Amino acid sequence: MDRIVECIPNFSEGKNQEVIDRIVGEIKKVRGVKLLDVESDADHNRSVVTFLGEPEAVAESVFLATKKASELIDLNKHKGEHPRIGATDVIPFVPISNVTMEECVELAKKVGERIASELKIPVYLYEAAATRPECINLADIRKGEYEDLRKDIETDPHRKPDFGPSKLHPTAGATVVGAREPLIAFNVNLGTDDIEIAKKIAKTVRFSSGGLKCVKAKGFEIKKRGIVQVSMNLTNYRETPISKAFEMVKCEADRYGVPITGSEIIGLVPLDAMVDVADVYLKLENFKKGQILETRLWE
Amino acid sequence: MDRIVECIPNFSEGKNQEVIDRIVGEIKKVRGVKLLDVESDADHNRSVVTFLGEPEAVAESVFLATKKASELIDLNKHKGEHPRIGATDVIPFVPISNVTMEECVELAKKVGERIASELKIPVYLYEAAATRPECINLADIRKGEYEDLRKDIETDPHRKPDFGPSKLHPTAGATVVGAREPLIAFNVNLGTDDIEIAKKIAKTVRFSSGGLKCVKAKGFEIKKRGIVQVSMNLTNYRETPISKAFEMVKCEADRYGVPITGSEIIGLVPLDAMVDVADVYLKLENFKKGQILETRLWE
Repeated sequence: MDRIVECIPNFSEGKNQEVIDRIVGEIKKVRGVKLLDVESDADHNRSVVTFLGEPEAVAESVFLATKKASELIDLNKHKGEHPRIGATDVIPFVPISNVTMEECVELAKKVGERIASELKIPVYLYEAAATRPECINLADIRKGEYEDLRKDIETDPHRKPDFGPSKLHPTAGATVVGAREPLIAFNVNLGTDDIEIAKKIAKTVRFSSGGLKCVKAKGFEIKKRGIVQVSMNLTNYRETPISKAFEMVKCEADRYGVPITGSEIIGLVPLDAMVDVADVYLKLENFKKGQILETRLWE
Repeated sequence: MDRIVECIPNFSEGKNQEVIDRIVGEIKKVRGVKLLDVESDADHNRSVVTFLGEPEAVAESVFLATKKASELIDLNKHKGEHPRIGATDVIPFVPISNVTMEECVELAKKVGERIASELKIPVYLYEAAATRPECINLADIRKGEYEDLRKDIETDPHRKPDFGPSKLHPTAGATVVGAREPLIAFNVNLGTDDIEIAKKIAKTVRFSSGGLKCVKAKGFEIKKRGIVQVSMNLTNYRETPISKAFEMVKCEADRYGVPITGSEIIGLVPLDAMVDVADVYLKLENFKKGQILETRLWE
């Protein structure tokens, strides 16, 4: 497998294991798709499925799962803490290896169009695939959830879908499809118990208060270790790499005379992001991911 | 594929493409083996084949290739610049992923024993698989080459093989089988044209003159760029990681007021070695290779 796309569809069922299994079964039955994770939350009444594969295989399997979800989930009977507008609520495509963001946007449009035409479910395009500013943020599209959207989609021109009818599917609602960069959860531990320092550093580093473009950050206490942490979400590691976020935290910590005691990457990370770290610190010239022995096994 | 061994057999044929193809064909026909490279040198009259796979598949395919080479290559008619003692001259097994050195040693012994018993070719175990000091270095085993070994193997107890008859195979000679760590070719560029500085740093860094345990190093000029380079071979990146070699070169360069302008990794490198770089510079806690998205595709 040379070209790799990640897909993380969210389905509005987090309790009924049989329903979840049947939806996930649609994904697994497509050849060349690798299921990584299924996380079901009963309170949210929602399941988040993570899988990888070549773009075509990923597109096929997420369509089949969306079809199955539209048959098995009735939004009129759905209750859960997490906001939602559809049986298949959101489908992000994420470029992982040898695939561009533009290709993922095309994939999102293709799948969105197919969901609309074959399943009669209205589809909104979001994030990198958005066609208008009011659809960039998922939260804006989901405003008022299934219950409010039922009327708004028919009356408010700003809430007209990108594909399909201006009318919710009677049971499956609407689906949001799009493309985004992988998120990297990266935390840096500081050798102090002063939470104010972690908060100040987080504020300096994050985009929302004038920091790095693709960084969200908060300060936390880790009480059992007697230290504090700058907890970050990197929303685009190609623009703001891990090393840049790390160095900025370190630089700020220096100002307070506080050492970095460690860091952690939570969950999954693309190989490109790890290679970039080596690139930066070793000043590597012309290093190619294909030089990593194991990558030869995907060819 | 979860457990990965690399194997780099050297065959004493570098001119006759048909013979080379037939030997390599034996490797390719084993399921689960991935051929990375075939490098044939006419002057050396030798081919170096690189492939990867699960331990059992790699063992099977290198045995089949050794059998084919014993049928097609006659050492009595072989001439080439590179020292050699057999049709299949040497077979190193290299642990790449989720395989220990001990397992590669066991693999070497198993394959060596099979070559001796089924093909009647005497086998020497070398490097990590060596059973005695005089067989650790390949050069010592190959001393006097095929021509001298013909008599020595029968008369000198130090040259008795580990497996098989104390008599060369009439056409295929003897084969050396063993296990070693992957070699990493790592060069660091200095912002000066003073070759003496590169030579002094190389001397400080390399094991042979009191430096790091698993580093060989030389100083070179890169005339077209007007700079010099410390060119290193890292013989065991688990003991002496890339970052340690880099930092020691940097530290020495500082003493001469010379900047590091870049570095390069030549050829292949195991993922573990690259992850280690990120581990060190980001002070990562508990990072596991399995967190890299792409590794999930090998499972």
